[in-house]
Amino acid sequence: MLKIAVYGKGGIGKSTMTSHLSAAFATLGKRVIQIGCDPKADSTISLLHGEPLKPVMEYLREDQEPQSIEEISKVGFGNILCIETGGPTPGLGCAGRGIIATFNLLEDLDLFEEYQPDVVMYDVLGDVVCGGFAAPIREGYAKDVIIVTSGEKMALYAANNIQSAVKNFADRGYAQVKGILLNHRNVENEREKVEAFAKANDLKIIGEIPRSNDINRYEEMGMTTIEGDINLEVSQKFIELAKKLLEDES
Amino acid sequence: MLKIAVYGKGGIGKSTMTSHLSAAFATLGKRVIQIGCDPKADSTISLLHGEPLKPVMEYLREDQEPQSIEEISKVGFGNILCIETGGPTPGLGCAGRGIIATFNLLEDLDLFEEYQPDVVMYDVLGDVVCGGFAAPIREGYAKDVIIVTSGEKMALYAANNIQSAVKNFADRGYAQVKGILLNHRNVENEREKVEAFAKANDLKIIGEIPRSNDINRYEEMGMTTIEGDINLEVSQKFIELAKKLLEDES
Ligand SMILES: Nc1ncnc2c1ncn2[C@@H]1O[C@H](COP(=O)(O)OP(=O)(O)O)[C@@H](O)[C@H]1O
Ligand SMILES: Nc1ncnc2c1ncn2[C@@H]1O[C@H](COP(=O)(O)OP(=O)(O)O)[C@@H](O)[C@H]1O
Ligand code: SF4
Ligand code: SF4
Ligand SMILES: [Mg+2]
Ligand SMILES: [Mg+2]
Repeated sequence: MLKIAVYGKGGIGKSTMTSHLSAAFATLGKRVIQIGCDPKADSTISLLHGEPLKPVMEYLREDQEPQSIEEISKVGFGNILCIETGGPTPGLGCAGRGIIATFNLLEDLDLFEEYQPDVVMYDVLGDVVCGGFAAPIREGYAKDVIIVTSGEKMALYAANNIQSAVKNFADRGYAQVKGILLNHRNVENEREKVEAFAKANDLKIIGEIPRSNDINRYEEMGMTTIEGDINLEVSQKFIELAKKLLEDES
Repeated sequence: MLKIAVYGKGGIGKSTMTSHLSAAFATLGKRVIQIGCDPKADSTISLLHGEPLKPVMEYLREDQEPQSIEEISKVGFGNILCIETGGPTPGLGCAGRGIIATFNLLEDLDLFEEYQPDVVMYDVLGDVVCGGFAAPIREGYAKDVIIVTSGEKMALYAANNIQSAVKNFADRGYAQVKGILLNHRNVENEREKVEAFAKANDLKIIGEIPRSNDINRYEEMGMTTIEGDINLEVSQKFIELAKKLLEDES
């Protein structure tokens, strides 16, 4: 089973990358779960034709302990099972603990045993990598970490915090950084900047996604480019990356 | 005493706005403290000619309980007392609790009694407004909140979380949103978008800062435009805003 956590700065394109990868895995015939772990709770929206999914934290806040996976999930493109943790009431409580509470619930509901996925994707905010937001890499949920970054200073700052968070847990045999996914923002010398960061931290760039209007166009229609037009160059980039990740696993 | 917390999305320009406002208050003869509450710990760097300031969390992590304010602060432009809380080791602990730990230390060291400031500025990340990051508005440290935003969707999303976090504590008589500071990013219909957000939440736009190369130019020299060239239009915008805030207070 592939268990991948996609981390990166807010707005860098984590949900876009995660959803496209999930869609690519599904297209390759895999059974996929995507869990959005960002308080924004919009990770899976492009797998669900733009329909928002009620986050688990909202059920927990309303003291409605959900009794089944069906209650808290929706099935999207390619039969991908979509779940959103959501966040705390702003100003109250701990965003990261929301992730942990959701994970505990998913275990109580035997998600992984019941659903038997081939791939689980976690989409996690990396602006503040505190204990809570590190849960997917700390608790053994994810095995591989993909860090999404552009060449922007702030994106690389977040990427650096993420890779050191992962290293803090490396000796316990949990997650490791699989590599960097360069999502282009078209800043000057972008590849050089990201390559320099990768080299300094002994990491690989495992994929490169161009800035693409097709992504925006299909996003407005509530879908990934994989669903919209699998023959596009950008769609094929995700298919290739998905294939590579599956090969490395086997 | 003016006690202002500046909140907003990471990268939106909080530290730039906060430092320019602090510099403006100092130029108007006020005694100012600026406390950076972002794990990035670079809030005060443009008041300190580019020299980084060791964050309080680093002292606490090394189990060196600081014995005086002098140890953990630096005096910058216009005699502004600069302090950075810093953040946790990535992946471990709670970024927000770092803010709380620092505030407790500052109280133990009698910062406010000893220093008798006219203005205290808090510069706080608003991407995740959990209990920890809400500390400045929850614990009565700040009285007024300024929300920095552009017309970008993600900036307005963060702004919305911040304003609801503040409302969650309004009835306890603590902080209130003074208004929105529109830091232009030159997106389409920017003022209209921010005005619509302000109106929907019954908030005022208290200032508008243009995108300005002078800000970048002086930042590279480790200073605000107030220090660099007070006669610039952008410098005068901050001076006007500082005057308005002082008038409203009296
Ligand atoms: N390669 C790309 N080309 C064009 N637009 C992109 C690309 N990657 C991301 N975007 C756009 O950037 C915005 C933010 O992306 P999103 O995936 O929501 O970020 P995050 O999940 O990291 O907060 C979205 O509107 C998305 O369409
Ligand atoms: N009005 C502006 N004009 C030009 N550059 C700006 C402006 N506001 C912010 N910046 C630049 O944006 C970058 C991020 O700003 P910063 O204040 O560090 O953001 P934050 O503290 O919110 O993370 C800085 O390099 C800063 O110079
Ligand atoms: S561990 Fe993280 S998510 Fe939890 S309260 Fe602390 S900063 Fe927030
Ligand atoms: S652990 Fe993190 S998310 Fe939770 S209250 Fe603390 S700072 Fe906030
Ligand atoms: Mg997202
Ligand atoms: Mg800052």
